[in-house]
Parts: sequence; structure tokens; C-alpha cells
Amino acid sequence: MADTEIDLDLDFDDSQDPIWNPALLAIPMPGIRRMVNLAATLDDVIHLSIGQPDMPAPAHVVDAATEALQAGQTGYTMDAGLPELLEALAEYYAERYHRPLDPENFLITTGATEAIYLALTALSAPGREIILPDPSFMLYAPLIRMQGGSVYNVPLRQENRYQLDPDEVIAAMDRNTAAVVLNSPSNPTGTVYPRETVEAIVEEAAYRNIHVISDEVYDHLIYDGKTYPSVLGCCSDLDHVMVISSFSKTYSMAGMRVGWLVASQGAIRKLRRYHMFTTTVANTPCQWAGVAALRGGSEFVDSMLEEYSRRRDRLVELVAQTPGLRGYRPEGAFYMFPSLPEGVDGNDVALRLLRETGVCTIPGGTFGEGSTNALRISYSTSIDRIEEAFERIIPWMEKQDFT
Amino acid sequence: MADTEIDLDLDFDDSQDPIWNPALLAIPMPGIRRMVNLAATLDDVIHLSIGQPDMPAPAHVVDAATEALQAGQTGYTMDAGLPELLEALAEYYAERYHRPLDPENFLITTGATEAIYLALTALSAPGREIILPDPSFMLYAPLIRMQGGSVYNVPLRQENRYQLDPDEVIAAMDRNTAAVVLNSPSNPTGTVYPRETVEAIVEEAAYRNIHVISDEVYDHLIYDGKTYPSVLGCCSDLDHVMVISSFSKTYSMAGMRVGWLVASQGAIRKLRRYHMFTTTVANTPCQWAGVAALRGGSEFVDSMLEEYSRRRDRLVELVAQTPGLRGYRPEGAFYMFPSLPEGVDGNDVALRLLRETGVCTIPGGTFGEGSTNALRISYSTSIDRIEEAFERIIPWMEKQDFT
Repeated sequence: MADTEIDLDLDFDDSQDPIWNPALLAIPMPGIRRMVNLAATLDDVIHLSIGQPDMPAPAHVVDAATEALQAGQTGYTMDAGLPELLEALAEYYAERYHRPLDPENFLITTGATEAIYLALTALSAPGREIILPDPSFMLYAPLIRMQGGSVYNVPLRQENRYQLDPDEVIAAMDRNTAAVVLNSPSNPTGTVYPRETVEAIVEEAAYRNIHVISDEVYDHLIYDGKTYPSVLGCCSDLDHVMVISSFSKTYSMAGMRVGWLVASQGAIRKLRRYHMFTTTVANTPCQWAGVAALRGGSEFVDSMLEEYSRRRDRLVELVAQTPGLRGYRPEGAFYMFPSLPEGVDGNDVALRLLRETGVCTIPGGTFGEGSTNALRISYSTSIDRIEEAFERIIPWMEKQDFT
Repeated sequence: MADTEIDLDLDFDDSQDPIWNPALLAIPMPGIRRMVNLAATLDDVIHLSIGQPDMPAPAHVVDAATEALQAGQTGYTMDAGLPELLEALAEYYAERYHRPLDPENFLITTGATEAIYLALTALSAPGREIILPDPSFMLYAPLIRMQGGSVYNVPLRQENRYQLDPDEVIAAMDRNTAAVVLNSPSNPTGTVYPRETVEAIVEEAAYRNIHVISDEVYDHLIYDGKTYPSVLGCCSDLDHVMVISSFSKTYSMAGMRVGWLVASQGAIRKLRRYHMFTTTVANTPCQWAGVAALRGGSEFVDSMLEEYSRRRDRLVELVAQTPGLRGYRPEGAFYMFPSLPEGVDGNDVALRLLRETGVCTIPGGTFGEGSTNALRISYSTSIDRIEEAFERIIPWMEKQDFT
């Protein structure tokens, strides 16, 4: 009976309801939500589907929000954000990437989601194309299509650990291209693009009057002691880049909903106006928490990195032992995107795996039309739970006949 | 020199910048922001321009957010909102308007702004018309136009205390009409529509398959002991209404950014999907504050009402003593919208009044093309400050020659 409800949800068809803006048809029923809804009807589910850190936020961050609340910080901030946070962000980025940045280069948003929404809405339009890697985070394509724009997919391949070939991106640029979206470290693959890739794309894009939208929400989740190649460290001018990040993944503050966008001051001025019409301003007490996060040292991040790094290593081993899954060693974020045998539909596998073993993963097709034969596995859960999950996955996969 | 910056801002012309989505041209430089920017460059300004309550949020509300933070409530909630808040809202509305409502009739948003954004975006589209009173809150018209829809203005008249004539609204409905927007108590006029007006519009709209979007953010700021006629108290079916409200004005929580939308369960299911692409979810600790607000009794609201009521009475007296301003007795919210002599441009008056006396009001044209000869005066400031402001306004107005 619970199944019937789920199926109704899956079959939901907007086209029968003429009152809705047809632009909303660009928004699919999100694959993650489908799986999570089904999981909610089952007992004893192990979630390898989680998109937020599983540790509590650091105490000094929580305390800063608390103090702000108790000090009466419950009214609106300036539309661009709390001046103290804009200032702290400018200092932090200037130091991290050795470049001058002013508070006027920043806009504080309701999480990175609103920043992505503003950036894609501002650049997409009918007749314009935006280049996306396939697979990509599932928000990008629908937002482009909602504005009447079209998506040009550059396929990523598991055998290249989902690295993006800058030559393929540049070859895809034409007079209709408005923007390229980068997301490194990537959700869903955990891939980190090397500096050469980022530089080549940013340089060619600027030359052709194309924007690079860089979603850098996992910019602190970089393993093996590597340095992170941000778009902000790979360009001199800001007039063709929009860099997005947030506190959600770095400080386990997803529910505090504070993100931001870095761009030229001219772009920020325009986006501020639009921001007033979508959400007005971000949450005031949690912007104070953000100031504390930026000023509070790297202890929390360091220990989180160590823990995620161990989990990553264990997951790589477990996937290698699983018949029918082909893994690799992700370099960032907390996801792996192992592929299934060619031609196998990840939707079907993820759904049956959940129903028959109680392990919840996300089907690859959620992240792109060319990525259906893969699963996204999140390791934002304890090593014990990951091991328990594979005690179910391995025997189940052994029984599958994928030929 | 500060003036030059302001003027640059006013003259900003998007059309020279081909990279931006032309839909964003529907968004004007907000009149409020213009005035506030200019005011920021001046000394000794009295703000009669404020759109949020000037009292601190109630202690039990602040404490609830604090407790949630300290208890580790910093991750995402469900996409529709915190289940405890959805439950509390359903109970609160069911009791207030004597009708059955489920948690599934609600969607929690980043303030009422996101709810307005979702509702108008969902119903507007090229070829569709949405009926707005003129004057109206300045977010509505640009959001309709951004989706390619058009605005049909029903003019309100100061001599009728800006009451909306339901027959004029009904006469304006035709086959292209997708929705009517109501906002009672109104920003910028403080007008409360009587039950008969609301009922007549809701009934005719449902009959014609037209939605009523009711922005009820001031639903607790009703003076003179009157009962508030909500759209939720004036309709049997929910399938043609979307009611929006928030904690911002009722509990002085504007910076905590928690609002909501009440609609049919089918509509909420669709809006939830879109909501995931704009902001994902609302702020978690402040949703807990919302639960405390709803369960915490009416003491705060009662004392706020008493205070605002006194201010309203004093403002009515002061406007009556001011040459060139014609007032009336607003019944709700914390605004009055006195008119200037016919043909006088409120933009010019507000700008000169600010420059020459330091009193910041908002020009009427911000709220509609047919409302230029008026000013919006907010009384969300102490009686002392209101009196001080009129000690400047009255002599200044005496010197004006409006003929």
C-alpha cells in the first residue's frame, strides 16, 4: 500500500494541469527524493545517499549563532548580506587565492542552492546553450531549461575517473554558448579537476565572452594533501566567472542555509536586485555563525578530512570487491560514482537494491542522461555502516545476471 | 560625490549588457533601495521607510532557536519543512479558521518572499494575465513579468481608503487571467479588505479556474479589535487558493527567514519540487523558533498591537495637520499611504524631502504606475521619532508650491 503512494508520485504528470507555468515542466521529480521517499516506507535502511556531512557543526560556530540570537540579531541584514560576513569572506578568499577582493565582490545567499539558481537564471535564456559535464549535480540542467536555455552535455568517462577534457569543452563552445558549469570536487563523482583543466577552460571562455560558473561547495574536501585549484586561483579578471560556495559541507552547516556567490562588482550589483525578489536576504543569526566559521581556524576541517579520507579508502576497497561495480579513487567531496556493466540501468538496480537489501544509493541517471549505468554512493556515514552496507550489496550483486 | 554614485545606480542600464537573461530586465531598481542608499550617505536621517517591526523578537522564540542549535539541529530538514513546524502550522490554522488542514497543505519557505516567488512563478507565463491592485507590494509585478506574464492593474483610490472593489476585479477577469493577488492588510496602504470583498473574489475566481494568491503576512496586525478575514476563512475548497504568510511581522523575526505557503496538497507537492531548485529547504534552527512562536501564546502580539495602534492614531493626527498630504485611518499593518495633490510626483517629493529634511519615506510609484502621487509612511518606529519627523515635514510641506 505504501508502494502505491510511491508509484503515484513517480507517475505524476504535470501536463494534465494547464494552470501551471509550462516552464516548471523542466523540473523533474528528483531521483534523490524518489529513493528517499521509498526508503522512508522501509525498515532498517542504510543510507549511502546522504548529501550533507554527518558530523555536528563545530561548537564555536553554533555558539556564534546563539550569541547573535541572544543579542537581538533577528532583523534583516543589508540585501547583499551581513557586512561583517562580506568582509570576512573577502579577507578569507583574498588570502587563500592571493588576489585582491572587496566585500562588494560577494553576495550572501540562502545556501549555495540560491546562488546556483541566481547564476543560472541570470545567464540562461531561449537560444542560449550552457555546457554541462554529464554527470553533473542535478540542479543545473532543469534550471537552465526553466529559462528556456538548452544544455550541451560533455560526457565524462569512468575510465578517466570522470576527468573533464578541456579540449572537449572548448570544442563545444560556439556563438550560442552563454556559460560552462564546473563543479570540482564533483557531486556525484568526487573528481577534482587539475589546475591545467580549469585554466584552459577559464581562459578560452573569457576570450569568447562565455561565463564560467564554478560550484565549489566541496572546496575544502580535498584528499591526499593536494592544493585545490579554484577558478579564483586560475583567472586574473572576474568579469567572466561566478564562483559559488557555502558553509554547508565545510562546517556541517547545511541546515543553516548560508552560501555565497563571488563575481565582478558589476555582476554582484545586478544579482543583488534579483536576490531581493527571490528570498530578500539570508538568515541573520546564521550569517554570524559564518563569520565565526571563517575566523575559527582549520581544526574542524582537518579532522573531518582525516575521517572522510579513511572512509574513502575503505569504500574503494569494498567497491573493488563487488562484482558488477567498477570503482576508482575519488580525490574530493564524499561521493563515488562506480559504474555498472554497460547497458545496465542504474534506476532499476538502485530501486531493487533498496527494496531487496535496504541499502539506499542514488541512480546515476539522476545526474545526467548519459550516466544511467552508474550509482552514486555517498560515504557521509560511518565506516561501520559502510561495511554493513557492503555485506548486503556484495552477495546481492553476486546473484545478479547483468548479461 | 556620494550623489554621483547614487545617480550612477539610478541610471544603470541592463540593455547594454547582452550576456544577461532578458527576463531579468523585468526587475526594476527597487525604489526602497534607492531611498535607503541615498539615506545611508546622509546624517541624522529619520526612517519612516522601515518594512520590519522595530521590537526585539520574543524571548521564548529566540530561546527555541538557541536550544535547537545547541541540540545539533544544523542539518537539512525534509524538503517541505520541519515536520514539527508543519504540524504546528496545520493545527494553528485549523483552529484559527475552523477548517481541516493537514501538514501536507503547507510548504515552509525562506521568508514570505520565496513563497511569493514560487506562487507567482508557478502561475505566470507568456499570454497569461495576473490581476494586481495598484498600489501593491513591489515584488509582485516584476515576478509576473519575469515569467513573461502581464499585469492587469485594478486602481485603488485614496478617497475609498484604498479599498478594493470586488466588482472591478471580477470585471477584469477574462480567459487569459491566471490569478488575482490579494494583500490584506496591505503594504503599502494598511487597508484591510472586508469579508464580503474576499468572498466575492475567491468565489468568482474558483468558478473561472483562476487562482487567488493571498499575501497575508500582516494577518495579526489588525487594529480596533476587528476579526481578520483571511482567504482561508472565505473558501471551502483549497484548489484555487495559495495563502502566504510568515513569522517576520507577527513575531519580529524578519531576519530569521521563515515563511510558508498554504495550498491544496496537489499544489504543495508541485511547489515542493520547485522549492528544491530555488533554496532546497528553509533554515532549521529558525523553524524551531517558529514552532515556539505558534505555541507561545498571544502576549507578544497583543502588546505589539497596542503599541502600533497608538502610533497609528498619532500618525493619523499628524498627517491631518500636514498641508499637501491627505491621509485616512489605516486598519492594519504599519503603513499609511497619504496622497499628494493631484499630478504631483511622489518620487520628486520623497527625494527632496530626504535631501532637505532627512526624513526618509518611500515614493508611491514604487508600488504601482498609477500610484505616483503618494508617499508610503511606515510607523514601525517610536512615537517620538514619528513626531520628530513631522516637525520637519510640516514646515517643509508648507513651503512647497504644488500648483
